[in-house]
Amino acid sequence: MTDDLPPHPALLPVGFTDLLPPDAEAEARLTETLTARFGAHGYQRVKPPLVEFESTLFAGSGAAVAEQTFRFMDPESQRMMGLRADTTPQIARIATTRLAAAPRPLRLAYAGQCLLVRGSHLAPERQVAQAGIELIGPDLPEADAEIIIAAAAALEAAGVASISIDLTMPPLIPALLGDTAGQPALVRALDRKDTAAIAALGGALAPTLRALLEAAGPAEPGMAALAAIALPDAVRGLADRLAATIAAIRHRAPALRLTIDPVEFRGYRYHTGVAVTIFAPGRQAELGRGGRYLCDNGESATGITLYPDTILKVAPRPAARPRLFLPAGTPPSVAQACRDQQFATIAGLLPVADDITEAKRLLCTHVWRDDHAVALQGF
Amino acid sequence: MTDDLPPHPALLPVGFTDLLPPDAEAEARLTETLTARFGAHGYQRVKPPLVEFESTLFAGSGAAVAEQTFRFMDPESQRMMGLRADTTPQIARIATTRLAAAPRPLRLAYAGQCLLVRGSHLAPERQVAQAGIELIGPDLPEADAEIIIAAAAALEAAGVASISIDLTMPPLIPALLGDTAGQPALVRALDRKDTAAIAALGGALAPTLRALLEAAGPAEPGMAALAAIALPDAVRGLADRLAATIAAIRHRAPALRLTIDPVEFRGYRYHTGVAVTIFAPGRQAELGRGGRYLCDNGESATGITLYPDTILKVAPRPAARPRLFLPAGTPPSVAQACRDQQFATIAGLLPVADDITEAKRLLCTHVWRDDHAVALQGF
Repeated sequence: MTDDLPPHPALLPVGFTDLLPPDAEAEARLTETLTARFGAHGYQRVKPPLVEFESTLFAGSGAAVAEQTFRFMDPESQRMMGLRADTTPQIARIATTRLAAAPRPLRLAYAGQCLLVRGSHLAPERQVAQAGIELIGPDLPEADAEIIIAAAAALEAAGVASISIDLTMPPLIPALLGDTAGQPALVRALDRKDTAAIAALGGALAPTLRALLEAAGPAEPGMAALAAIALPDAVRGLADRLAATIAAIRHRAPALRLTIDPVEFRGYRYHTGVAVTIFAPGRQAELGRGGRYLCDNGESATGITLYPDTILKVAPRPAARPRLFLPAGTPPSVAQACRDQQFATIAGLLPVADDITEAKRLLCTHVWRDDHAVALQGF
Repeated sequence: MTDDLPPHPALLPVGFTDLLPPDAEAEARLTETLTARFGAHGYQRVKPPLVEFESTLFAGSGAAVAEQTFRFMDPESQRMMGLRADTTPQIARIATTRLAAAPRPLRLAYAGQCLLVRGSHLAPERQVAQAGIELIGPDLPEADAEIIIAAAAALEAAGVASISIDLTMPPLIPALLGDTAGQPALVRALDRKDTAAIAALGGALAPTLRALLEAAGPAEPGMAALAAIALPDAVRGLADRLAATIAAIRHRAPALRLTIDPVEFRGYRYHTGVAVTIFAPGRQAELGRGGRYLCDNGESATGITLYPDTILKVAPRPAARPRLFLPAGTPPSVAQACRDQQFATIAGLLPVADDITEAKRLLCTHVWRDDHAVALQGF
């Protein structure tokens, strides 16, 4: 009968967590910082609902996350609804329906929670915060560059410097190989960057694939190497577009650390052009990802999603308000003046024998004494 | 076959909406303002997940919202999970489990989304934002007063003045009547404040019930009337506690507009002491509600939930950043300086024939011209 025992009250489903003080405050302020920076770059905030009909949620680019989406029936409409697993498809829906008449390029921003049916071994979280931007309209290198620079500026505002930005062109390998579905072993070899297997399986393309693999790395030498590889016209066009995007970024933000990986194409399931992954210093964490895609109506768009939960682990923490204990009976005007001076005031509800002991018990940093806020360190 | 037609792509399930510019930004900033004020009053933020096992979600005070909770099976654990319909039970869970050892009174704050299975005729929304505070620990009038004053301060910071705060004591009528379940007609009459029906159904209690009804209204005359009513000791104790809470509020915030309604007790399904509803000026909207309750482990607590979606409708809008069009090629340093001056910069991606026309097309307020941000009004 142990199966029927209720779980411990503190037990949450795998992949769901409580954020406690001071983490929850830090995450909220981090998200405010990111979205404020998006706003400064002209991206206006929208807020789609957490729940939609699955028919709209999985339209267009949303199909890529269908299998990761919790679904249930709406008792009102008897239709199936889904909890969003990604926000970008919702922003694309808003852009092409309710904001279809808004001038292009249309710049939108968002921040909110997403839910996933399953976590992975490396990323067990099933509730993931997202904060991002979408630029809907012209399919231009300058547009790709803008969202990358705006995302980098948001991370810089959050105190995360020395990021590394990896640029890929997911349609390039499929354009080179033709039908990738018919070549699963080669695709796996490319995914693992297994040069021996690529040489064995690549046939006539093996030298080209090897050269593309070797072009991966820092952007400038990588693009020089890519330029020297003989490629069919359609593939060359894609490589040139990647080069144009890098040039557009360099023109505006010469100091950004850019790498390219022309062979990478899996894990960008709906991207139709330049895609990007932003890594923390040392590449130990993925801070964001995005790229160019098509809206459900065929309109081109590009966007980047940042992951506040991950950024929180590498960003410096904002200073917390000092906590000031106000003994019971402290005049409200004094309390307000202290809050105006950036104290968090902790009000004594009833008089106590020793204000200093009580202030320490309540984990305060200061106590109100003789008409002053006095640091508790000295006591 | 019309049932199988997909809904229009812009169609959302009843009760779910997209917030568009500028509403989404205004709601986010409003929530930041409310939570910053909670923080200044010593309430530390926590962030429970959107999803929990239903066994923990419906424990204690959570049982009251079970029927309004979307549920589905967790494929990982094969257990039923629920999407929170209210945040307070989650905060109570955190307080009594992970923060069981934290000093009392424990002051916690939160902000996030809740989902409801069904909306009502008057409130069709099924996704509702909540921002609130909980004070876990001593069952004191001073604690009840503190959360009311902190909530009023948060609303004032959001520019909502002239609120009206209605105080009730939900256990009072059940203490007076005994078994209310056995008197559904009388309970309905009390709920409708139907004096004729109360006189007919109230029996020996009819004069007392009528006097309690007449005590409803502004707090001071109401409490004077309540003090003059002959009540059994247990009921008198509850009335005195309401009076003590009002005195504690008056001591700290003499100007707050307070009313009492000693007969009101439905709609406060888990409240064990003083409960509160905060109304907008003119009482046309409910901005928040809360009161005293017991955590799952029996610990006493009190809290207030504010409703940002409703507050947004009555709060003044913050000034939006002016939108400055920067022609393609504007140096990045200029763009940054403009953002530092609180402009939202709208970057031209490619050169255009006429910057002013383009700036107007993009709904900008300003254009960068001859090294200055120039207002478009003049053109």
